[in-house]
Amino acid sequence: MTSAEPPGTHGYDTGLGTDGYDVGLLAPVSAGTAAERATGDRAFLQAMLDAEAALTRAQAALGHAPGPAAEAVTEAARADGFDTRDLALRARAGGNPVIPLVTALTAAVPAHAAPYVHRGATSQDVLDTATMLVAARTLPLITAELHRAAEAFGRLAAAHRDTPMAGRTLGQHAVPTTFGLKAAGWRHLALDAADRLTALRLPAQLGGAAGTLAAFAYLAGAPDSGPELSERYAAELGLAAPVLPWHTLRTPIADLATALAFTTAALGKPAADVLLLARTETAELAEGSGGGSSAMPHKSNPVRATLVASAARQAPALAAVLLGSLAAEDERPAGAWHAEWQPLRDLLRLAGSAAHHTAELAEGLRVRPDRMLENLHRTRGLVTSERLAAALADVLGRAEARALLDRLSRRAAEEDRELAELLVAAPELIGRITSERLRTLADPACATGAAPLLVDHALRRQPSADPEGRP
Amino acid sequence: MTSAEPPGTHGYDTGLGTDGYDVGLLAPVSAGTAAERATGDRAFLQAMLDAEAALTRAQAALGHAPGPAAEAVTEAARADGFDTRDLALRARAGGNPVIPLVTALTAAVPAHAAPYVHRGATSQDVLDTATMLVAARTLPLITAELHRAAEAFGRLAAAHRDTPMAGRTLGQHAVPTTFGLKAAGWRHLALDAADRLTALRLPAQLGGAAGTLAAFAYLAGAPDSGPELSERYAAELGLAAPVLPWHTLRTPIADLATALAFTTAALGKPAADVLLLARTETAELAEGSGGGSSAMPHKSNPVRATLVASAARQAPALAAVLLGSLAAEDERPAGAWHAEWQPLRDLLRLAGSAAHHTAELAEGLRVRPDRMLENLHRTRGLVTSERLAAALADVLGRAEARALLDRLSRRAAEEDRELAELLVAAPELIGRITSERLRTLADPACATGAAPLLVDHALRRQPSADPEGRP
Amino acid sequence: MTSAEPPGTHGYDTGLGTDGYDVGLLAPVSAGTAAERATGDRAFLQAMLDAEAALTRAQAALGHAPGPAAEAVTEAARADGFDTRDLALRARAGGNPVIPLVTALTAAVPAHAAPYVHRGATSQDVLDTATMLVAARTLPLITAELHRAAEAFGRLAAAHRDTPMAGRTLGQHAVPTTFGLKAAGWRHLALDAADRLTALRLPAQLGGAAGTLAAFAYLAGAPDSGPELSERYAAELGLAAPVLPWHTLRTPIADLATALAFTTAALGKPAADVLLLARTETAELAEGSGGGSSAMPHKSNPVRATLVASAARQAPALAAVLLGSLAAEDERPAGAWHAEWQPLRDLLRLAGSAAHHTAELAEGLRVRPDRMLENLHRTRGLVTSERLAAALADVLGRAEARALLDRLSRRAAEEDRELAELLVAAPELIGRITSERLRTLADPACATGAAPLLVDHALRRQPSADPEGRP
Amino acid sequence: MTSAEPPGTHGYDTGLGTDGYDVGLLAPVSAGTAAERATGDRAFLQAMLDAEAALTRAQAALGHAPGPAAEAVTEAARADGFDTRDLALRARAGGNPVIPLVTALTAAVPAHAAPYVHRGATSQDVLDTATMLVAARTLPLITAELHRAAEAFGRLAAAHRDTPMAGRTLGQHAVPTTFGLKAAGWRHLALDAADRLTALRLPAQLGGAAGTLAAFAYLAGAPDSGPELSERYAAELGLAAPVLPWHTLRTPIADLATALAFTTAALGKPAADVLLLARTETAELAEGSGGGSSAMPHKSNPVRATLVASAARQAPALAAVLLGSLAAEDERPAGAWHAEWQPLRDLLRLAGSAAHHTAELAEGLRVRPDRMLENLHRTRGLVTSERLAAALADVLGRAEARALLDRLSRRAAEEDRELAELLVAAPELIGRITSERLRTLADPACATGAAPLLVDHALRRQPSADPEGRP
Repeated sequence: MTSAEPPGTHGYDTGLGTDGYDVGLLAPVSAGTAAERATGDRAFLQAMLDAEAALTRAQAALGHAPGPAAEAVTEAARADGFDTRDLALRARAGGNPVIPLVTALTAAVPAHAAPYVHRGATSQDVLDTATMLVAARTLPLITAELHRAAEAFGRLAAAHRDTPMAGRTLGQHAVPTTFGLKAAGWRHLALDAADRLTALRLPAQLGGAAGTLAAFAYLAGAPDSGPELSERYAAELGLAAPVLPWHTLRTPIADLATALAFTTAALGKPAADVLLLARTETAELAEGSGGGSSAMPHKSNPVRATLVASAARQAPALAAVLLGSLAAEDERPAGAWHAEWQPLRDLLRLAGSAAHHTAELAEGLRVRPDRMLENLHRTRGLVTSERLAAALADVLGRAEARALLDRLSRRAAEEDRELAELLVAAPELIGRITSERLRTLADPACATGAAPLLVDHALRRQPSADPEGRP
Repeated sequence: MTSAEPPGTHGYDTGLGTDGYDVGLLAPVSAGTAAERATGDRAFLQAMLDAEAALTRAQAALGHAPGPAAEAVTEAARADGFDTRDLALRARAGGNPVIPLVTALTAAVPAHAAPYVHRGATSQDVLDTATMLVAARTLPLITAELHRAAEAFGRLAAAHRDTPMAGRTLGQHAVPTTFGLKAAGWRHLALDAADRLTALRLPAQLGGAAGTLAAFAYLAGAPDSGPELSERYAAELGLAAPVLPWHTLRTPIADLATALAFTTAALGKPAADVLLLARTETAELAEGSGGGSSAMPHKSNPVRATLVASAARQAPALAAVLLGSLAAEDERPAGAWHAEWQPLRDLLRLAGSAAHHTAELAEGLRVRPDRMLENLHRTRGLVTSERLAAALADVLGRAEARALLDRLSRRAAEEDRELAELLVAAPELIGRITSERLRTLADPACATGAAPLLVDHALRRQPSADPEGRP
Repeated sequence: MTSAEPPGTHGYDTGLGTDGYDVGLLAPVSAGTAAERATGDRAFLQAMLDAEAALTRAQAALGHAPGPAAEAVTEAARADGFDTRDLALRARAGGNPVIPLVTALTAAVPAHAAPYVHRGATSQDVLDTATMLVAARTLPLITAELHRAAEAFGRLAAAHRDTPMAGRTLGQHAVPTTFGLKAAGWRHLALDAADRLTALRLPAQLGGAAGTLAAFAYLAGAPDSGPELSERYAAELGLAAPVLPWHTLRTPIADLATALAFTTAALGKPAADVLLLARTETAELAEGSGGGSSAMPHKSNPVRATLVASAARQAPALAAVLLGSLAAEDERPAGAWHAEWQPLRDLLRLAGSAAHHTAELAEGLRVRPDRMLENLHRTRGLVTSERLAAALADVLGRAEARALLDRLSRRAAEEDRELAELLVAAPELIGRITSERLRTLADPACATGAAPLLVDHALRRQPSADPEGRP
Repeated sequence: MTSAEPPGTHGYDTGLGTDGYDVGLLAPVSAGTAAERATGDRAFLQAMLDAEAALTRAQAALGHAPGPAAEAVTEAARADGFDTRDLALRARAGGNPVIPLVTALTAAVPAHAAPYVHRGATSQDVLDTATMLVAARTLPLITAELHRAAEAFGRLAAAHRDTPMAGRTLGQHAVPTTFGLKAAGWRHLALDAADRLTALRLPAQLGGAAGTLAAFAYLAGAPDSGPELSERYAAELGLAAPVLPWHTLRTPIADLATALAFTTAALGKPAADVLLLARTETAELAEGSGGGSSAMPHKSNPVRATLVASAARQAPALAAVLLGSLAAEDERPAGAWHAEWQPLRDLLRLAGSAAHHTAELAEGLRVRPDRMLENLHRTRGLVTSERLAAALADVLGRAEARALLDRLSRRAAEEDRELAELLVAAPELIGRITSERLRTLADPACATGAAPLLVDHALRRQPSADPEGRP
């Protein structure tokens, strides 16, 4: 609000209360995670201040500002010297928080340094750069959790390489697979996500009022110095130097958004599988320490999988908002830019939280091979019917084999008997194929195909190295 | 986290810092608005406590709990007695904040009342009901702002009923209209939004562990008392009584989400118009107090319209998440429910903020009829070509009239002359139609059709009354 | 472009091939449904022609056009006289299909009628009105299917009012419920959807080039006749008369979109439940005629539920696109309007198809109460622990009762024994509560609470009548 | 159902009519484009047949099927031998079109080949592979158009490297820039999109019923041959070999979806700029051949930009649906998979169409440097105020300089005079700075900063080569 507006009117509070604060009460998925902290308002404030300080230092390095000014700005650029809520309220007048921050930062430095605060820059330079800084600080937290999850999934895959379980399609038992193959698939997705995050290139943004770098140059009396300043600025921050100012070329934001939404949504796959396999009737998996219920003492809820699933449901829509902002008109759009800030923060937070809970889930997962085998036998051998049809075709011919299997499958279901037993007793087969062979053919645990081989193959994949040598 | 997890490990903070807090730094559209305060974590906490207290009072009213217990719970149910952040962190173990809240509330009441806290209820009863309470408290704030905006738009429509301006399609001048008709359209949308919000029915939720109301009844020793309790509970809270427990019948959430997304997105229409009509080249409108720029002293930015536009871009995606949660499996879904909380809060906040800034924008809007008229003449009368074609067809025949107009329109554009002058000088027309008539036909300001009539028509519409008599 | 393409065409085909046609191959959910046919390109073409004819008839009725012209236009306005693909290709030049259609329709009528084709109108008048007409013709198909589904669900609810089954939260057995209550909830959602569709108001659109109705009036020489024409036009089409031309006041589109997305997504609830309850391990429900598998003869897939689930996943995002188009700038937006057409058609089609398959699913659903009971007993009585805790507290005191139950619950799970038997044998209880009472308390089938009562309550709800008397 | 429908069909048509067909009437953006044809139902059908034929050939190559069978299947696998609509209708029974296609293809080959059709495969193997094939055939069409657009934008950037125009932020003139820099930014985005599409890795899918490759191996009597078969199959199709069967590891789909949505949405940036700069009041740009209007002969609409903008609005939501399908449960999800088909096709089509129209737009764009300069002067030199403030600070001191500029800027606006003239006449400056220097400082055309340098820098970027050597 401008000063023309008296406090307390028109629905504005006085800025003193904390009632509007969000401290995570509605976000159990992210409350208390490292990603929450790394993306809070305080973290954004610090990143904006870091961008301001880096700009002055870069100007000093090029001789466009005095060294002591750069030192003074750097010294003052500490978030705990500023009132975040006050800045938030003052941000309304101009539509972004950098405008009041520049005022506050200028007031916080000695007079000699004041002219060199934010010199030549525009709000978007600082806010976009701060966003990339926050991302640069949060992404390693996320990839670390993804790698932790991948390791744990890898251990599960190796341990259960040959553990037979039902492969299910449209919720129905189809043919056998192994739990190792399922876990290897989860690992594959976690590595896909980590690779995509690691490959992201996070550039600093510097363009001045309309992306021409004009003010930097003429304020410094150094025409054509803009691009060099831009590179130095990026280097000060550990960010990539941009090819062009990207104030309305939002590829960095869109790439970040889609990689984060991919991460969060892909983690929805192991979560969905755990939720299904932990259902009371199936009970093949359980979370290491399931969540309790005040009302129902017997319950052990798959809480982590639930929280990850809740994140996976929110992320794609947020990415859609950010992709929509690619159509950014002019040299700064009126709305598309402003609509990016919250969804991007939310995506960083959701991805980091989902990765964290997935890692915890993976490390603590309880696997019950006995239940997997028991469930696999529920259809009385029918999950092997595909294989039996092939084998018996050699003995009886294709059509007769199929007819026999159809008949015996129905009987197995109706009479609740094992298909193997019915086959062994089938007059058509007596003397033409041994009972032992029939029992093997009808044993689901012997029909996992290439699942173990595929596990071996998948586990040879390693995480991609960071192209820029980050850990 | 469960007690098995030591604090500080695996990326969890100790719950003491404030770094993860969001105080509005990235949300200038909502910072400081009444809707922000009404939807903060504190407001949700109070609403949960209100739900707990209402439940005990309802049970007392039916004789299922002692009156003093109800009084004690009501007394203890004040948000300032609880640590919101601590609850947020404890919410992780079970996946929702009600579980730790029940523990804390139970500890906060005298021993005699403890057994009557949350008696028979499930977490979802309290959280869903709290959501409806927060909505019930926020919606009047939003509709008040919408009615304020509608009034201001109505005044603009009446004042500019006959003010001619260019009607534009695909960005090009088409035919004249009046600014009054445009403002009447904005009012129409604001009333559409207010009507949809006013018509919402916000029910309490009470079902117990799986929606059967079982525990309420047998704890009270009063079989079949569930439905009566449910009605009393709703009445205590001023909410509607539900036909069925709606733990997985999410119509109330979906209705709320779509009405809020409608509101926010519809307000994007006046915002989009203001942004275009305020462009430097057009300059027909300006915000009452435009936002400044630290770098560019001459700028007066349409900040409110920008903020509203940013809200309008975010709301539809959030509604999509909430519509997606309609497919809620079982008696409580694992993820779909948890994915509702943040997007719904965000929608309440965005709608309220967008309505607030729209009201401010409407009340302060500066209209420049001179610029409207000047711009209308930019095409040298070509915006009347449709009407001229009709009138001249009576004189020259359809084909010849069209050919003449095409020729003179080209000349008007090429020679930058008024179409009217070229027509008056056209040999084909001399003596067949008066110069005066030609000038009237080619005068854009005389070609606004039924625009004034439509304004009158539109202004007769009144806001719908609240069906339940709320103000 | 590939070399296969003739030079100079820049990728346009000649309009002769059918390779680009979509005939439903990727849309098994809608292929062959009434909603597919009612929303095809032919249906839209016919609706546009109906709008054109109605306009001329309305003008004739007001004396603004000759009666024979109206008859001639009406006669010519039959879709089979036009080449839909040719119109689609010609639509590119102006960005919408009405422009070439007007040319073609004008050529198709006798010379005397030609001047009265599309007289005074703009493309958007015709396309928006056609969209409302298509909606008006499709919605009754959808509500009929919804009512059919609701009836079938209602029969299931009545038949299984007391059929006990496990209530499940986060995938875990919680407390018992009845299948009737679940089916009553499905019915409730189907009725919610039908009510929302029935309440929609579908207005005709008439505004002329920029929504001022100017051309209609001066072409007719009848100033101020616009509003009357608009009403007559709407009446000719059986649509509502608009308060204002809504070319950029898109409430009718947004309302339609959200009601259709609600419908489709809400039907995802019964689909999700059926998919879970039909899982091999659970097997409480099965589709009447499940889909087969070429590879696996034993499978009976819940295909209808799968198709409905696929529709429910797509609808919310489409609604988001349409809500986004509310921010329609100027008197016709450049893009927002054009982005509405396909998503809205898709929504009509998805809602209609989802309703159709839900009705089929509901009518053919196979319910297995024996499996429900068997599954309910899987936790050995633990689903009654909430109730037992209450009852035993009266005997042993709250703390001791809870401790006993915790101990015995663990034993029941570990030793795979019934909780009831352990209770009967518990020394703490002998002589203090009868075995019979203990067995009743621990019998899940006796713990369905108010579920049957709620079924009765829910079944008293009737579908809303159409406010305009449509069937 | 309507009464017109034969009883018992429940809304299914007989498959004979064409009313439900979509031939592009509602999609002017894609009608007639190469991308439309490459993604039609016929193209998908052919791709499915190609996948079937490649599978048999791969099996023959490994000795698992007779060579003549592979030849026969390949010979029969031509889309024109099949009835697409009939397959679409038959797809409903099993929920996907491959099931009836296998039946039809089996019937179309000689008896000796019949057992080798689809041998060991599952529907998803064929449909997923066909999707990748369609993508592989469509992506080069899209990248070719993107490169064409990039070339044309590059020519504009070079030609207008120094052409001054107003840089605009929030719709207001900020500081000058050049049109070359704007066009260089458009090129940058087009190359970003092309690079992302080119980098995509499109793998074949082969897994059998549940992703274990089991049936391939035992039908061939060759244990462990699955992975080798998978590689051979991919090679036959020119697709990448997958690390793991990806039936429920949907990274390839998600990567494709996000790259296509990025492409479409990023092209919304030049479209948005063209729409704004072509507005009647601004008129700095015009489409080469604007779309006409039947009603308004003077109009020349930016139709291509409008169509691209309409595509950019739809794409992000479709990507959200596909990201949502990453959470694919089990070994084939019930709904998430089926929900991918239409949105992915739509994305391919929208991206290809948007790229096509952008290329056309770029090649035909009419640029009016005179109007750019005229508009740049509209603020009477105020766009140079940032630079003037810096320069005058050296003369007058910071505070006095600012005060003078504020005063003269107000006068310039109020009196509609050039800021330069007021400065030259200012007593404070006379004798302290030359008139010539003041005029240069206040000349917007001399204040484009590093814009020309940045153009040079940007034009050095070349399109990425295809990593696999595709053209």
